Parts: sequence; structure tokens; C-alpha cells
Amino acid sequence: MTSLGIGLIGTGFMGKCHAMAWSHVRPVFGDVPEIRLETLCDIDPDVTQKRAAEYGFARAETDWRKLVDDKRIDIISITSPNNVHREMAVAFLEAGKHVWCEKPMALTLEEAEAMTVAATKAKGRTLLGYNYIKNPAVLHAKKLIDAKAIGDVVHFRGQVDEDYLASPDVPWSKRARIDLWGLGTLGDITCHLVSFAHLLIGDIASVSADMETVVKQRPVPGTSEMREVENEDIAHAIVRFKSGISGMLASSRAAWGRKNLIRFEVHGTKGMLTFDQERLNELQLYMSEGPEETRGFRTILTGPVHTPYGQFTPAPGHQLGFNELKVIEAKHLLDCIANGKECFVNFAEGLKIERVIHGMAQSARERKWVDVA
Amino acid sequence: MTSLGIGLIGTGFMGKCHAMAWSHVRPVFGDVPEIRLETLCDIDPDVTQKRAAEYGFARAETDWRKLVDDKRIDIISITSPNNVHREMAVAFLEAGKHVWCEKPMALTLEEAEAMTVAATKAKGRTLLGYNYIKNPAVLHAKKLIDAKAIGDVVHFRGQVDEDYLASPDVPWSKRARIDLWGLGTLGDITCHLVSFAHLLIGDIASVSADMETVVKQRPVPGTSEMREVENEDIAHAIVRFKSGISGMLASSRAAWGRKNLIRFEVHGTKGMLTFDQERLNELQLYMSEGPEETRGFRTILTGPVHTPYGQFTPAPGHQLGFNELKVIEAKHLLDCIANGKECFVNFAEGLKIERVIHGMAQSARERKWVDVA
Amino acid sequence: MTSLGIGLIGTGFMGKCHAMAWSHVRPVFGDVPEIRLETLCDIDPDVTQKRAAEYGFARAETDWRKLVDDKRIDIISITSPNNVHREMAVAFLEAGKHVWCEKPMALTLEEAEAMTVAATKAKGRTLLGYNYIKNPAVLHAKKLIDAKAIGDVVHFRGQVDEDYLASPDVPWSKRARIDLWGLGTLGDITCHLVSFAHLLIGDIASVSADMETVVKQRPVPGTSEMREVENEDIAHAIVRFKSGISGMLASSRAAWGRKNLIRFEVHGTKGMLTFDQERLNELQLYMSEGPEETRGFRTILTGPVHTPYGQFTPAPGHQLGFNELKVIEAKHLLDCIANGKECFVNFAEGLKIERVIHGMAQSARERKWVDVA
Amino acid sequence: MTSLGIGLIGTGFMGKCHAMAWSHVRPVFGDVPEIRLETLCDIDPDVTQKRAAEYGFARAETDWRKLVDDKRIDIISITSPNNVHREMAVAFLEAGKHVWCEKPMALTLEEAEAMTVAATKAKGRTLLGYNYIKNPAVLHAKKLIDAKAIGDVVHFRGQVDEDYLASPDVPWSKRARIDLWGLGTLGDITCHLVSFAHLLIGDIASVSADMETVVKQRPVPGTSEMREVENEDIAHAIVRFKSGISGMLASSRAAWGRKNLIRFEVHGTKGMLTFDQERLNELQLYMSEGPEETRGFRTILTGPVHTPYGQFTPAPGHQLGFNELKVIEAKHLLDCIANGKECFVNFAEGLKIERVIHGMAQSARERKWVDVA
Repeated sequence: MTSLGIGLIGTGFMGKCHAMAWSHVRPVFGDVPEIRLETLCDIDPDVTQKRAAEYGFARAETDWRKLVDDKRIDIISITSPNNVHREMAVAFLEAGKHVWCEKPMALTLEEAEAMTVAATKAKGRTLLGYNYIKNPAVLHAKKLIDAKAIGDVVHFRGQVDEDYLASPDVPWSKRARIDLWGLGTLGDITCHLVSFAHLLIGDIASVSADMETVVKQRPVPGTSEMREVENEDIAHAIVRFKSGISGMLASSRAAWGRKNLIRFEVHGTKGMLTFDQERLNELQLYMSEGPEETRGFRTILTGPVHTPYGQFTPAPGHQLGFNELKVIEAKHLLDCIANGKECFVNFAEGLKIERVIHGMAQSARERKWVDVA
Repeated sequence: MTSLGIGLIGTGFMGKCHAMAWSHVRPVFGDVPEIRLETLCDIDPDVTQKRAAEYGFARAETDWRKLVDDKRIDIISITSPNNVHREMAVAFLEAGKHVWCEKPMALTLEEAEAMTVAATKAKGRTLLGYNYIKNPAVLHAKKLIDAKAIGDVVHFRGQVDEDYLASPDVPWSKRARIDLWGLGTLGDITCHLVSFAHLLIGDIASVSADMETVVKQRPVPGTSEMREVENEDIAHAIVRFKSGISGMLASSRAAWGRKNLIRFEVHGTKGMLTFDQERLNELQLYMSEGPEETRGFRTILTGPVHTPYGQFTPAPGHQLGFNELKVIEAKHLLDCIANGKECFVNFAEGLKIERVIHGMAQSARERKWVDVA
Repeated sequence: MTSLGIGLIGTGFMGKCHAMAWSHVRPVFGDVPEIRLETLCDIDPDVTQKRAAEYGFARAETDWRKLVDDKRIDIISITSPNNVHREMAVAFLEAGKHVWCEKPMALTLEEAEAMTVAATKAKGRTLLGYNYIKNPAVLHAKKLIDAKAIGDVVHFRGQVDEDYLASPDVPWSKRARIDLWGLGTLGDITCHLVSFAHLLIGDIASVSADMETVVKQRPVPGTSEMREVENEDIAHAIVRFKSGISGMLASSRAAWGRKNLIRFEVHGTKGMLTFDQERLNELQLYMSEGPEETRGFRTILTGPVHTPYGQFTPAPGHQLGFNELKVIEAKHLLDCIANGKECFVNFAEGLKIERVIHGMAQSARERKWVDVA
Repeated sequence: MTSLGIGLIGTGFMGKCHAMAWSHVRPVFGDVPEIRLETLCDIDPDVTQKRAAEYGFARAETDWRKLVDDKRIDIISITSPNNVHREMAVAFLEAGKHVWCEKPMALTLEEAEAMTVAATKAKGRTLLGYNYIKNPAVLHAKKLIDAKAIGDVVHFRGQVDEDYLASPDVPWSKRARIDLWGLGTLGDITCHLVSFAHLLIGDIASVSADMETVVKQRPVPGTSEMREVENEDIAHAIVRFKSGISGMLASSRAAWGRKNLIRFEVHGTKGMLTFDQERLNELQLYMSEGPEETRGFRTILTGPVHTPYGQFTPAPGHQLGFNELKVIEAKHLLDCIANGKECFVNFAEGLKIERVIHGMAQSARERKWVDVA
């Protein structure tokens, strides 16, 4: 394929991020088809027109359905609100497009299942925007685990915390409504943690979870009214993986001081690996080998030896940024399109993640262990 | 009281630690009675004699019962194996002594209950050796929490990890037997984590736990035999406190690279506090006040403003050590003896901790939530 | 100006970095003219053609002089070897172009002076590629210093270390030759440290320096010969600034384990600021205010409150990367072109930096203090 | 020798520290003679009497000369102000006692020389209180360096910073007077840094230094007067060691936020070692061996494998404190007494340190390199 046309729905946080990823994937990696930025779509015509010019898209559009049958578009980036993911993704899949959709998949398990069914029937690739797992540090962790550098994995612990809803003064918004936003912390950030767990350890089989809404009511903007927050601020669980090992997941969107903390610990019979997204260019590795007196956790700074860091800069320790992880994600999609393989996380894998987070919600409500696979 | 006589049972790790604490409590604090090191007791007569001379005890003894009725002894330090704690503690309490006993209290809940009953009837103070909670950094955390520096507490997370049984090559020992050692990780280290939780947040009310023995068999020294490990290497739980807030506990004695990691996070409505025992002279505090652009976690180095650090050295940042935390614990016991107040953790409080760890074991076995208070 | 045409010389490490910066500056910032990627120039025609296609340049060229009079080119990015900087920069300035040139300016002080003279006479803006000082964390440090958040500045310390020439096995190359590469560590990395010092504190006035070549000979590739390394691996100095305050500079290109360490400490009468490029999204701030018991160094994670972080992502703590700092640098050049102001670091400011590093070399040779301003 | 009698002059910060060291050296190490705490001496009779009782000394005394000829005293600990070190040390040496004297040696080089002459003629051992270099982490660093774990040493950098005189509000005291206190930062803390450099690298041969008094006047307590500070707050230098390698020393007593920061970096041809006294139980080691992708600085937590940590506790990572380093120092003196070897730092070695710090003061005044060995 000599070139691929891109359609992008959404001009917010992740829309811009996709646009930047599409404009960098070829400069960075070289060995990919030419990328044509065809159509940018969002509801406000003026903003969309302005952003299309800035991002380098050929056209601006306000009706996403116009993109569905546009032959110039090969890949659709969906960064719209979660409640329209299903409708859009299914339509584009049926039209034969490749679909790169932001997480969480959808509002409900049923929607996620419908998307997965559509993906199974479609010829296009699907990829969900689990931003963090294409990090060279994380890919290197995966490689070390697979190579048994820490022996057999015996335990996993993870936490993901932010503070965007820590303040009771943050006003009520649609984020607080289950019918519009779905799950709270579970859908926003816990799902990321599950993406790490599934990548590094394998599928989670069962969960015993708890959850809580810390700020129970929030002020409605422009009024003196307080309105109920319907979804959870904190969610955590003890889990068992299919492989039999145990684990823990912790998450909060009300954790003061945490901006994008995603930590994991992988315990092995011969060592340990830990990572923290707030220092995304570092990996901590302990190996129980060599003289005991010089053992210690090593702070590995990523560099060109950690593929594909070297595509961004030949100089180690220079640090990649969040947006660059998204460029690697775009490259992954292009590779899967080229070689016909499934992406990770495709819709089928994404559905497994949805089952974990919805299973956590169920477990918390029913106060019992729930099977999720 | 012008002076107090000390008896000490045990010359191992914690026996030496108690001896050093007793010889420093007066030089460090000044305002305590004279401490007379009366009798050191352990089973090997030669070793005990040698250690008594080194530690400065007046006498060595091999039969602990000889100390029970010795009028020269006011306080007994019990650092013997867990399976004799009950018998010793009850005897000394009935003889009117003050009892400073290492944790865990006993092998079983029944034994811990018997000790608590004895304590209730006795005139002596009781203190359990929860080594880490008298740290000035931890006391300061408690003070900040009580002063609402982080607002209302909404969540607690803790982990305690060591690697003393991480290697499959560590031989089988009595630690592996439930009848001699009792619980594994839960009794060795998880209980410390519960002592932090109870100090900082309040009592835990219910738990949903899981546990696992990573190394299922270990080599029996001097043989070619492998013998089963009966107790758990890993134990973790989601919990609810009596106050209603949620929490998590994680622990492992098979966590490579962790030497004495005890971390906690206290999430509040206005900030967050975290601590790590492997850097015991530091406290991390985030407060959601002041301009957002200069907010961040503060690394507070303990100093004389954090009582009773200044008793050890007037210079901030000079660092206290593990053994010195035990001197503060001794001082706490002396203060409680002087003013007739209950120690924290006394036997009644210790029993609550035992209920949590035994409740975790039960929850893990039965795969359901268990009430522990 | 509705659009600006870009010429780029060089397809190596920094050439690619400039190309990526030019393709992102408009998507990221929006409020800049359209950027036309006109001509990419390097000596190998095939590689240059390939890279031009990947980076999105309209044309490839092997003779840089063809770009000098090309009316379609408004701005020239010079990322060629240091020994041709002068010739190129002067030619483009005389042709009325804006010049963005990588550091160090040139091989010798005389060349740097000639470039500065040319810049003074030219109508184009000049900007030197001091990559690190446009970091939002660093800009925030500057803002805090100017706002007296740490009181009056009384001292500066900086170090810059890498290990690209730490191994004696790294072969001899033109980097080792003074006539082709100029200074060693001083030109490669010490100059970055000086850019921080001049930005944050002001100009350095005098230096007492030392330097040393750790690996004195290196193997010539493809031969059994060892050849002399002519320039320094380590260079360090005590300095005085024009303002009278004292400082220290340390640098090494043979510092094992350091990948891109650039640390500075700014000591003030009311606080301290520190930074480390290997964790470029963090700033450490200590302020001597508030209760002593909660004082400590704060780890400030950069976010949208730290301009222009928010242009890259609205989410704090998500981390910018090295390449994104270069986008901010490109934006700075565009702003200066638009408003007619001088860039920092322009050629005149760059010459001051050159005087410091050449003064350090002189001081080290003559073992005496040398005035550099 | 079956027992040794101790005299201790001073009941302040370091007097208490010595008292605690003497009471712990035998409990901790076992294989040392019995320690008899004979006489505590200070000028206030009531305080001295009280402290003697607390510390366990047999007698209190206010006239230090009474201790000189007391046959019961074998070792004298001198923790009195610096301006009486010479007189006391010489007297006790002439009386045949072993002398453990706090640093700095004396007010002037001449005094330090006189002390060294007296030590040469005396039969007693001498030991200067360079508190930090007996740390197991530091001893391990020394061992690694000697074993060439980082190859050949090529560079040394050190800094020592505190903030006890950072605030302009700290009142004027005798510390500010050269005739009573001698050097400022150089004598207080820079000398510690030199003790590290001499231990790890070898003697410093020449220095080019600078120094500065940040707070030039301080309020005289109980008056409205401001009085001049005569000695330096900041002192730093570039240095050459006798072995030919280069180094840097930085120090400040006015560095906000630093409580007891003593950092060093030892650069080698095969690796690097770094240490920070504010985390005294950690050593950072980078070795250029093994696959590049898993290289990184290791945080080595000290434990029983790092002699003599295990004397304090058999459990790794439990953390030693500042006061315990002093117990190791006492043990070192007892060992040297027993085996007739010279201590490090004895008076002859201490004189070398004095020559470095006084040489730095001279270099700063004269703005030129000064030979110090």
C-alpha cells in the first residue's frame, strides 16, 4: 500500500493527540506508507475548520457519517465521547475501515460485545487507545518477563491514580452520569491498569472488588444546586489470573497529588520489575544474581537498545513524552494493517478488559468474588 | 519510682535490640527512672552468660520461670519464639510485672485472647513490639492526620514486603510449620502493616483476602528431602474500616529486592501522606493549597521539630536508625508505667490486630468477606 | 505572514529532531503561520531523498548553497557538523534568511565572533539550539527565580554528564580532533550547562577551570592503530557571575551511567530550586516558609499551569519528551520572527557562552582565573 | 586488656553522641573490652551531674585537668569547643591517654600541627570524629573501589550542604568569630567532605577555591545591634589529587532545605559510585557490564553483607542511624588500641585535612591555585 488516508473524529485532548501521532508516524519510523490526513470531524464547524488547518487535514466535517463511505479514508480515529463509540465503530467497521478507538470501549458490556462482534466480521483492524503499553520501557519489561529474567511470575500489583476529581469544588458534569459516561474511575483509568496486567501477566479470571464515591455531590455550574455523582471515585480489587497467580488493582480519580501515576510491580521467583508512568522513561529491575553485596534495584533509563526508542532519538536518556507513546501506537496499527495480524489491544482483547472492570463493579455491589473470564 | 529492674528473655535478633534499647533509654531521654539490667535469660548457658556480660546484665539464667518471682525485676522483655509468648506473658502478668512482648502476640487467636484476659486482670502495663509506629516520621503523620492537614481521610493503602523467603534455596525451618510458627507472612509482617492502619486510621472492620504459598516445598537441611511449607508467603486484602472508609493491604515475604519495605498512603480530601520504612526518616506530604504551579509532594526530612527526634540528636536530617525506634518504644512503656495509662499497642489492641490477620486467613480460605471487629 | 518556508541541512540526530519540530509546531501551538517544508539537504542523495519523503519535505538537495538564494525558504535549520556552521550561517544571514543553528556555534571563538557580526548586520533572527532551556519546568524555574520565590540568588551549581565516550572501546573519530570538532566536552555538553546558568542567573564573568582527557588514545576503526584524543573528556570550573555571586560547573562525556544528566541547583536566601534533565518533567523546590515541620523539597510535576505544557496535552503529569522541547524552541523562533524581538539564545548570547567554554579551556591550560565577559 | 576507662569532656550534641557510643560499643560488637564510664566533665556542675547520672558515668567533674592524671581513665573523648582542642589533646596525649577528638582539629593550622607533633611522641592512639566515613555503605564503597569494581578512578565530586545558617534571622554567635571558631563552613562541614575524598581517593594535592559570606551581618541577641560575620558560608574548589586525578568540592552552611547532605560521586573507567548521607543506608552503583539494556544505577540497601552492619541487626534494609555510625567509630578506636595500629583519621591524617581546608581559604583569598600536600 503506498498511502493511507486518515479520518479523525474529535478535536479534544485525544483528538489532538491522534492528529500529532498521525503527522509523526512516518517521520519517526520511515518504513510506513505515506499518511494522508483527509478529514477532521467535530461538531463545531468553526473550531473544526481551524483545527483541520492547524493539524494539516485536507477537509473539515461536522457529520461523522459523511466519513463512513468516503473512499479516501482508510483508517478512522475515534476520539469522541464514550457513548457514541459503539455506533461509530460498528459503522466504520462495516464500511471496511480500520478503526482506532479511544478507551474505554463503550458505556456498557453489551455495547462492547456488539463492537467485538462487528470487528470479528470486518476486514479492518481494530485498535483501542491503551496509551501506555507501547512505551519502550513497558515493552522491555514484557521482554524481560518473557525471557524469565525475573524467573516465574508469582504476583502482580498495580495502582493508577489521578486527582482530577479530588477537589469537591470540581463542578458536576456528564462524567458523573452513568447513562452518559458509564463507569467512573473504572472506565477512565482502572482499565489502563488492566491493560498492563493483561499484557504482562495474562488475562484476569476473577475479582473481589470494592468501590466508593468520595465526593457524593458536586455543584452544578451556573446554579446553586448540588447534584449526585453516580459513579465511583475509588475502585480496587484482589484478583486471580487465569494462570493462577494472584494480584491487586488499586485506582482513584480523587487521589491528591497524583497526576498520572500508574505503577506496577511484577514479582518473580528470581527478581522483581517495577514501573511508574510518572517517570515513564525508567524501569526498576532487581535480579537475585551476582554477589549479594552489590544487588539492588536498577534504574534502567530507556535508550535506543529499548525498541523503538531509537526511532525518536539515537541518544539514550533523552526521554520520550506521552504523545510519543501514541506515535508508537499508530505504528503498531500500521504494522498490523500491513501484515494482517491482530493489534493488541484489539476489540476482542478490549472486551476482556471491559469484563474485568464491569466485573469489579458487580463484585463491589454484591460483595463477593466474580468470575470475569 | 527511682529505678526499674529489667529481665530479658531471648538473645537473638530482637533480644539484642531490646538490650540496646534498655541501655539507651535513659541516656537518650534523661527523664526516666534509672534502669537496672537484672537478668538475661536464654536456653544456652554459655551464650547467655557471654551476652549478659556484653549487654551489661547483672545475671544470666536459662530457666525463665526463675525470673517470674524475682522481686528485682519490674519489667520483662519477651523476645522468645511465638509459641511460648502466651505462657510467659500470662505468668509474668500474674506475677505483677510489666510485659513488653514481641509480635505477633501468639500462634492462635485463642492464645492472644488468653493473654488479653490476663492483661485485663493484671496491674502491669503491656506493650507489643510493633517496632515501626514510634518513628517520629510516623508520629508526625498521625499528628498531621489528626490536625486535618490532608482533610478527611478517605482511603488507606499499605504494603509490607521482604525477601527473606524469596529464594527457593532457603531451607525448610520451623517458620514453615503452623503448629510452631503459626501464620506465615500474616504473622511476620502483615501485622506490622495493620499496626500502622489502626494507629493512623482506626480499626479495620472487615476484609476480603487472598493468600498464597509461592515456594511450596523447601529442602530439609542435612537431608535430600523436600518438606511442605504450611503457611503463606503472600497475603493481601481489600478492607473496610469501622469508620467506613476503604483500604488495601498487601504483603509478601517472597518479594525479591525488598528488605524492609513498609509503605503506606493515606488519601485525604485535601491532600495525601505517604511513607516508606526503607527511607524511615522521610515523610511525603501533598497539600492542595497555595498556587497550583508550586504544589508537589514534599519530602519532609525528620528533625528536632518532630518529637522525639531531638532526644537523639539536635541536628535535623541526621537520620535515626531502626534500633533507635525501639528506644522510643521503651520510653513509651516507661511513660505508661509512670502515668498509669495504657500503651499502644497493648494486648487489647494487639488482639484486634490478630483478629485482622486471622480474619484474612479465614477470608482467603473461604473466599468471602469476613468481619474482624 | 501567512506561511513560512523551511530549509533543513542535515538528516542525522538533530536533523530529524528539527524536521519533527517543524511538522509539529503548528498542530501543537495553532497560532503560528503555516509551515512549508521546502528543502531537505544532506550529502548522500539517496538518503536525503528518502528522508525528504518521510519528513514531508517537497525537495531533496545535496548542495547547501542551492538553498541560500531560494526564495521559497524563509528559515534555515542548520544541523550540519560544527566545522561548517560559520560558513553556512553567514551565507544564509547575508541572504536574509532566519537561521536556527545547532550548538556549539563553531569550532573557534573567531568563527563565533564572525557569525555574531553577520547576525548584527542581518535582518533575520538567529537562534542556537540550546535544547533544554525551553522546557516548561525550566521556564517555571526562571519565573520563580524572577518572582523571588527563593529570595535573592546567592549561588549556582550545575553538572552535565553523559557516558558516550566513557568506554575506551569507543573508536577514534573526528570528535577527537580539535581542527574538525573543536572542544570536546566543553563544546558538546558544558555549553548546555552555561545556557542554563546564563538564563537563570545571568552572565558568567570569570572562571578558574580544570580539564582532563580520561581516555587518551582510542582505536582507529579498521586498523590496529591507536590514535590520540586531542580534546577533553572532563571539564569543570569555579566561576563568578557578573552579578557577583559564585558558582560551579562540572561536566564529563566519560561519566558511566549518565545518559543525559543535566542538574542544577539555585541557592537563594529564602529557598532552593533544583532540576535534573533525566527527569525533565519535575522541578524540586524548597521554600523556607510555613511551619518548619512540614517543610521539604517539593517535587513539582509539570502540567498545564506551566506554560506552554498545556499546548501538548491538557493533562498534568503526562510528561513531555526531549523532542517536544524542540517544538517549543521552534515556536520561540516563530514568535521572535513575528514580533521582531531577539531570540534567546541568539548569536550574540551564544557568543557569550562560547567565551565561557573557551575561557575554561584557557584557564585550565594556564592554571589561573580568566575573565570571560 | 580486660577493661578500659572512659573520660568524656562535653555534654552537648557530640558529648551525648560519644556517651551513647561508649554505652553501645560492647553490646553491639561483643568482642571488645569492658567499657567503664568513669568521668563526665563540663563547666556547669549541675548539668554535668545530671548528665553523668543519665549517661551512666561514675563521676561528674567541672575541671578537665582533673581527668588528665586520673589513672582510671584510659581514653578521653574530647567534644569541647574547637578553641580548646589543642590544649586538651596535647595534655591527655602527654599523660599517656588515647584521644578521641571531635573535628575540626583546631582553630589554626599551627594548633593542628602542634597536636600532630604531640601525637607522634605519644603512646596513645588518636582518632578524629569524622562521623560519616565508618558507615557500612561508605566502607563498602571503599571496598568496591579498591577491588576495581568501577575500574580505575578518574574523577571525584563531592558536596556537603546544610541550612543551619541559611536564615538571616539566626543570631550572631561565636561561630561567626575567627578567633573563637576559626573557619566557617570549611571547618564545620567541608572537612567532612575532605575526609571522604582522602578515604576513597587519596590525598588532595592542590586546590583552586572560592568562598563567600552570604549573610554578612547578624543580629546580636538581646540588642538591636548587627555584627559582622567573619567567616565563610560557602566554600568550593576544583582540586587535583596526588594521584593526578581531578575533583570538585562544594559546601555551604546556608543551603536551604539541606539538613545533612553529603554527596559524593566517584567516576571510574568501568562504572560509577554515588552516595548521599541524607539516605545513608543506600549506595548507588553503576557497572558497565552485562547487557546494556538492563544496565542502570543500582540502589544497594545496606545489610549484614556490608560489614559491620550485621552487628547492629541481622535484618537487611532495617537502616542504621547517625548515632550508630559513631559506635563503629568507637569500635575502630578500640581495635586500634588493641592491635597497635593507627586509626583513620588520626591526627597526622587530620592535619592533611586541615591543610586542605586552610589551603582552600588561602586560595580563595589569593585567587590562585595553592599546593596543600
